[in-house]
Amino acid sequence: MPKRVAIYPGTFDPFTCGHLDIVNRAIRLFDEVIVTIAQNSKKKPLFNLKERQELIRDATYDLPSVRVDSFNGLLIDYARQIKAVAIIRGLRAISDFEFEFQMALMNRRQEGSITTVFLMANEKYTYLNSSIVKEVAQFGGKIDNLVTDLVAKKLKEKFSK
Amino acid sequence: MPKRVAIYPGTFDPFTCGHLDIVNRAIRLFDEVIVTIAQNSKKKPLFNLKERQELIRDATYDLPSVRVDSFNGLLIDYARQIKAVAIIRGLRAISDFEFEFQMALMNRRQEGSITTVFLMANEKYTYLNSSIVKEVAQFGGKIDNLVTDLVAKKLKEKFSK
Amino acid sequence: MPKRVAIYPGTFDPFTCGHLDIVNRAIRLFDEVIVTIAQNSKKKPLFNLKERQELIRDATYDLPSVRVDSFNGLLIDYARQIKAVAIIRGLRAISDFEFEFQMALMNRRQEGSITTVFLMANEKYTYLNSSIVKEVAQFGGKIDNLVTDLVAKKLKEKFSK
Amino acid sequence: MPKRVAIYPGTFDPFTCGHLDIVNRAIRLFDEVIVTIAQNSKKKPLFNLKERQELIRDATYDLPSVRVDSFNGLLIDYARQIKAVAIIRGLRAISDFEFEFQMALMNRRQEGSITTVFLMANEKYTYLNSSIVKEVAQFGGKIDNLVTDLVAKKLKEKFSK
Amino acid sequence: MPKRVAIYPGTFDPFTCGHLDIVNRAIRLFDEVIVTIAQNSKKKPLFNLKERQELIRDATYDLPSVRVDSFNGLLIDYARQIKAVAIIRGLRAISDFEFEFQMALMNRRQEGSITTVFLMANEKYTYLNSSIVKEVAQFGGKIDNLVTDLVAKKLKEKFSK
Amino acid sequence: MPKRVAIYPGTFDPFTCGHLDIVNRAIRLFDEVIVTIAQNSKKKPLFNLKERQELIRDATYDLPSVRVDSFNGLLIDYARQIKAVAIIRGLRAISDFEFEFQMALMNRRQEGSITTVFLMANEKYTYLNSSIVKEVAQFGGKIDNLVTDLVAKKLKEKFSK
Repeated sequence: MPKRVAIYPGTFDPFTCGHLDIVNRAIRLFDEVIVTIAQNSKKKPLFNLKERQELIRDATYDLPSVRVDSFNGLLIDYARQIKAVAIIRGLRAISDFEFEFQMALMNRRQEGSITTVFLMANEKYTYLNSSIVKEVAQFGGKIDNLVTDLVAKKLKEKFSK
Repeated sequence: MPKRVAIYPGTFDPFTCGHLDIVNRAIRLFDEVIVTIAQNSKKKPLFNLKERQELIRDATYDLPSVRVDSFNGLLIDYARQIKAVAIIRGLRAISDFEFEFQMALMNRRQEGSITTVFLMANEKYTYLNSSIVKEVAQFGGKIDNLVTDLVAKKLKEKFSK
Repeated sequence: MPKRVAIYPGTFDPFTCGHLDIVNRAIRLFDEVIVTIAQNSKKKPLFNLKERQELIRDATYDLPSVRVDSFNGLLIDYARQIKAVAIIRGLRAISDFEFEFQMALMNRRQEGSITTVFLMANEKYTYLNSSIVKEVAQFGGKIDNLVTDLVAKKLKEKFSK
Repeated sequence: MPKRVAIYPGTFDPFTCGHLDIVNRAIRLFDEVIVTIAQNSKKKPLFNLKERQELIRDATYDLPSVRVDSFNGLLIDYARQIKAVAIIRGLRAISDFEFEFQMALMNRRQEGSITTVFLMANEKYTYLNSSIVKEVAQFGGKIDNLVTDLVAKKLKEKFSK
Repeated sequence: MPKRVAIYPGTFDPFTCGHLDIVNRAIRLFDEVIVTIAQNSKKKPLFNLKERQELIRDATYDLPSVRVDSFNGLLIDYARQIKAVAIIRGLRAISDFEFEFQMALMNRRQEGSITTVFLMANEKYTYLNSSIVKEVAQFGGKIDNLVTDLVAKKLKEKFSK
Repeated sequence: MPKRVAIYPGTFDPFTCGHLDIVNRAIRLFDEVIVTIAQNSKKKPLFNLKERQELIRDATYDLPSVRVDSFNGLLIDYARQIKAVAIIRGLRAISDFEFEFQMALMNRRQEGSITTVFLMANEKYTYLNSSIVKEVAQFGGKIDNLVTDLVAKKLKEKFSK
C-alpha cells in the first residue's frame, strides 16, 4: 500500500489555532500532511514566506508526519507533482462554503484523481481567521488561545515597530 | 500501519448516483469504506433494509474495498465498534451545511478521535437527493443518470403497484 | 410570433399579496400568465381547490391576461401540455433558493425548452408566506395589507368556526 | 424611569445551556427577563408544561430578575399584556436567521413599539438545540455541559422508561 | 439603578434611514444611545469625520437620549471606557451575519460583560447600505426616503463638484 | 403587440459559457436580448471594451435576436432609454443572491415598470465566473468547456505576453 499524502494549502499569514486544529485531525487520516504556503497571493503578507514557514514548523514540531512547504502557480500542478491524493480544506462558516466549492470543482476539473477533503474546525474557531487576528493584535487586543505563543510574540513585534 | 476504515452512513432510500460519486472518491482515501444504513429514521422508508442493501451492493459490486452494513442507535457507537477513523458525509448545498455541522460536532463531542470528513458531490448532483428522485419517479418522470439501472427498475415496480 | 404563455404554480393556501405582486410583474413579460394550483400536496389545505381558485380569481379579476387553473402529477407534464415557455417562481429569501433551484433543475432535466424564471417579490413581502398568514389569522392578529380583503374575510370565517 | 421588561419565548423542551447563556446576557440589559413557554406548539413535547417550567426555574434559581411563565395564542398579545419592551431571541446559525426575521417582522407589524432583540449564543452552543439533545440522550450519548444536571437526570428518566 | 448606555458603532458614510431606524428602536431599550463613528477604516470616506457627525446630529436632533461620538482603535476599549453595557448592530441580510458574529465573538472574548445586541432593520431597508446610496447618487438616481434631506443635499453637492 | 426587449448587463471580462447559457435561455422568452457591457466598473478589465464586445459577438453570432451593446452610468437609465421590459441576471449560487437582490430593488425603486428576471445557469456553471477563468488561464490550467474557443485563445495570448 503506497503512502497516502495530503496537502493543506493556505496563506497562513499567520498560522492560527484553527489551522492547527485542522492539521491535528488530518494526521489521523493520512500518512503525511504537507502544510503548504501559496505564494501567488495578490495581497502583501504581514509575515514573509520564511517567517510563515517557521511559525508553522514551531506549531507542528511534535507532529512527525507533518511537513511544511510552499508553492507557486496552480495548486493542482503542485499536488500532482507531490503525488498527493487529497487537498485538505477547513470549513468554518457558510461564507467559506461557496468559494471553497468553486476552488474544489476547478481543481477536480484539472485533475479528477485528487480529492478535496473538507474538515470542520472546532466550534471555538468558527469565526477565527488570520485577518481578524492581525486586526485585533494591531490594537493590542487579547489573542491568546487563538494563535500559538510564538505567533503572538511575533505579532507583537510586528505591530510595536 | 493499521488499515484505515471509514464509514459512510445514510438512509439511502434509495442509493443515488450522487451517493455513488461520494463512494468513488472515498475509496481513494481509505483502505475500507463501509456504506452503512441508519435504521432509526422516523420516516417509513420506501425500500426496506434488505432492498436498500441490495441496491447499494449492486451499485458498488466492482469496488472491492466497499462493504455494505447497517446500524441502530448512535452512529458514533457504531463507528467506535467498527474502529472507524472517519465518518464520510457528502456536502452538496448550503442547506446541508448546518445540519451536517451539528451532527459532526455532536459526534466529535462523543468521541474526539473519529473525524467527520466532508466530500463534495459532483456538481451534476448538487441538487439531487433520494426524496426528489422518488417524487419524480412516482409521476413517471425521467430519472436516468440520477440512479443506477437497478434502482430505476425497482422504483418503477414500487410505483406501478 | 406565437403567444408566450407562462405558468405560475403553487399551493396558494391562500393567495397572498406577495403572490399578487409576482403576478403583476409577470404580466408585463408574458402574453398570458396561468396561476395554477398544485393538487398533489401532501398537506391537507385549509381552503379546498375551488375556494383557492375563487380567491385567486377575485384577486386578479382586473388582469385580463391572467387565467386560473390547477394540475395533478408532474408540473413539467402540465407545462408541456399547456405549451408554456416559462415557469414563474417568486424568490423571497435564501431559504427559498435551494429548494427552488432543485425543482428548476429537475424540471429542466425533464424538458429543456421550458425555462424557470425567478421574479423577486417586493421587499414588503420578503418574509410573507401563506403559513404565517394562517398562523396569525388563527389567533386574531392583523393581516391587512398581506392578503386581499376577500382572503382576510374567508380566513376569519374559517377560524371563527 | 419605568422598569424595562423583556420576554424570552420558546418551547424549551428542554431548556439547554444555550438558552441559559442567552438569559445570562439578557439580565444585564433589562430590569426583568421573563422566560415564557409557548404552549400552542403543534408537536407534543417530551416534557409537559409544568416539568419544563421547573427545569427553567432550577437553571435560573440564582438569577433574581428572571421569572418563568407561559402563554397561549399570539406572542405579541402576551408581550403587550406583560408591558414588555423587548422580545429576546437567540441567534445561533444562519438557519435560524430567516425564520426569526419572519417572526420579528410579523410581530412588529402587530405592535411597532415592541422590539425583537437578537443575542448571540456562545460559540460553544452554535449547533445546540433541544432536538439534538433529546436525540443523543435517547441513545445514551453524552450530554453533560449541554444541559443542566437536572435536565440530564430527567432526560435519563424519560428515556429509561 | 445605574443608567444603561449602548453604543452604535459604524462608518456612517453617510448615515441612512436604515441607520436611523435602528437608532429609533435602540432608544426604547437603553437610557442613552451613542452613535459613534469608527475612524480606523482603511477606505477613505466620502464625508470627513466632522461632516458625518453633523449629518447624524441633524438626523437625530429630536432624540434627546442620542449622542454622537467617534473612536479610534479597538471598539471594545472604547466601549469599556464609555461604560457601555451593549454594542448595537443592525442586521439586515445574511451577508451581514457572519461578519457580525465574528466581530461580536471577538469583542466578547476581549470583554465578556459587554453584550452585542442585534436589531433588525425595517424590511424597507433590508438591502440598503451607504455604498449603494453613494453609487446611485453619483449617477443622479433617486435616493429620497433612503437618506435624510440633508444627506441627499450633501451627496448632491459632493457629486456635482 | 410591441416587441419585448430584455437587457443582460455585465462586465463580461471575459464572456463565459455560463453567460452564453443564460443568453440561450433568455432568447426563448424575449423578442430581443441585448447583452450590454457596464463600463463604469472600478476594476481595470483584462479585455478592453472593444475586445469584450467582439468576444460576445463571436459567441452569439448564430443567435439573430441577440445584440451587443455597452452603457455608462445607471443601468436603469440605459434600460429606460432602450425601452427594455426586463433586466436579465444569472443566478448561480447564494453568494450572488443578496447582491443581486440589492441591485434589483434599487433598480425597481428607480423605475417600477422594468422587472429584473433571474435565470438559473446550468449546474455545470454553478461555480464558474470570469475571475476564476482568468486565474486558471493565467497559470496554464484547463479552461475548455468553460469559455468559447475564441475566448480561450485570447486568454492564452494575454497571459503569454
